[in-house]
Amino acid sequence: MSTHQAIAILDSGVGGLTVAKEVMRQLPRERVLYFGDTARAPYGPRSKEEVALFTRQIVDYLLQFDPKMIVIACNTATAVAIEAIRTNVSVPVLGVITPGARAAIKQTKNGQIGVIGTEGTIRSGAYVTALRRISPGVKVVSLACPTLVPLVEKGMFRSEEASDVVCEALRPLRNETIDTLILGCTHYPFLADRIKRCMGEDVALISSADQTARDISTLLSHTGQLESSNEVPVHRFFCSGDPRTFQWIAQDWLNEQIHVTPVMWQVPKFI
Amino acid sequence: MSTHQAIAILDSGVGGLTVAKEVMRQLPRERVLYFGDTARAPYGPRSKEEVALFTRQIVDYLLQFDPKMIVIACNTATAVAIEAIRTNVSVPVLGVITPGARAAIKQTKNGQIGVIGTEGTIRSGAYVTALRRISPGVKVVSLACPTLVPLVEKGMFRSEEASDVVCEALRPLRNETIDTLILGCTHYPFLADRIKRCMGEDVALISSADQTARDISTLLSHTGQLESSNEVPVHRFFCSGDPRTFQWIAQDWLNEQIHVTPVMWQVPKFI
Repeated sequence: MSTHQAIAILDSGVGGLTVAKEVMRQLPRERVLYFGDTARAPYGPRSKEEVALFTRQIVDYLLQFDPKMIVIACNTATAVAIEAIRTNVSVPVLGVITPGARAAIKQTKNGQIGVIGTEGTIRSGAYVTALRRISPGVKVVSLACPTLVPLVEKGMFRSEEASDVVCEALRPLRNETIDTLILGCTHYPFLADRIKRCMGEDVALISSADQTARDISTLLSHTGQLESSNEVPVHRFFCSGDPRTFQWIAQDWLNEQIHVTPVMWQVPKFI
Repeated sequence: MSTHQAIAILDSGVGGLTVAKEVMRQLPRERVLYFGDTARAPYGPRSKEEVALFTRQIVDYLLQFDPKMIVIACNTATAVAIEAIRTNVSVPVLGVITPGARAAIKQTKNGQIGVIGTEGTIRSGAYVTALRRISPGVKVVSLACPTLVPLVEKGMFRSEEASDVVCEALRPLRNETIDTLILGCTHYPFLADRIKRCMGEDVALISSADQTARDISTLLSHTGQLESSNEVPVHRFFCSGDPRTFQWIAQDWLNEQIHVTPVMWQVPKFI
């Protein structure tokens, strides 16, 4: 195990770029490999079995680059696949659910926490389990917001329409007394400004992306695996769908030029 | 290794109670053992050798209770002793410096971070090293504030005098353009309101106490050692000095009744 190995980050599409961006900001020495499965996004409405299979396939692809850590930067995939991946892989595997849960427990003053996510994530109950596992007394209000991921994957997160879609999706939370809201999908930080405006100043937003980057830092530091080189790291990006759309969204979000390697699955779309 | 083992927290005095309180809040299932070396506080002005010896002695004392983790909740002791302790102890040993450094890097927008601490902590350069180790580009402004710990150890943190002492101590930071200030001593959260008033709304305070509790949660979660019992945990408190003063400050800070076991060192004060 060497400190020079990269951190491998995967997602159903562009959502995990919110984690990648925070890793690059909080850990500027580290090299990132990113895989967006854009040909098969969104994962939210898919069956458990399908999501688990896709996740395993991407992890196998990334392992050929000998990363020091695998980050499943997709809440849906974390919810259904992380335990199986952990069992089969020798490097540390991090998901995005427990970091967000931990941060929400740290943040909340009134013990009432909201969670928004895809249907798959909310149906799995993974956040409720993670929150109660740590702090059995918290009240959790969960809401599936299936309309949000498509906005982001289409690159429409800066559009006028996005505000209306976000407000409509969050309406059921308006009368809740939560003081903390977990953005339980790595796509949602793209819409954070709009979510904030809709929920008001009194509700703190927890980005599982930011928190996961923080946890990656904690674990690498504790295992002595932080990169020590002063060289500017060269990140690599892969996607299974149209590389131009991916590149456009990624460059806009990361605010830097990137090169994208398209990956064609041998069995197209696996469906 | 069992999940039922306690988390052992140690400090030169009452400062580490800020970590203990956050552990109890963020991880309400966990059992805490706390040791305050009040007979020999403050550690700040002492030599490296003395602090390292005292820390080792307390760790040995706490190991008899078979804890699952040792937390050195004292910045001065972390700065000079953590590496040696880690080498000699088989359970994970956590300090309070890297968690604060990580959180400050996550927080800062302008890359300019202030650190206040005891003379020992500031002289060691441990925060500068930890910050640059992760993010080589940050600017760090360090300031030793030796007048603050005595205020807290005497239980004077709610006094009128405290505001004046805090403002005087922080004066050199007033013209700095930092946007983030690390409370690099676990005693300082007792004075957080006053520090906040003095530094203004535009400077975010990072409590190494809160952040350390968060990192404890991350590591226990990752190693599968989070307590799963639903029983209300019974914490234990030890101190080497006057147990009444310790008990009074601890009950005020933790807002609950506690029992304190006085510990008499066989070689009094070791000086």
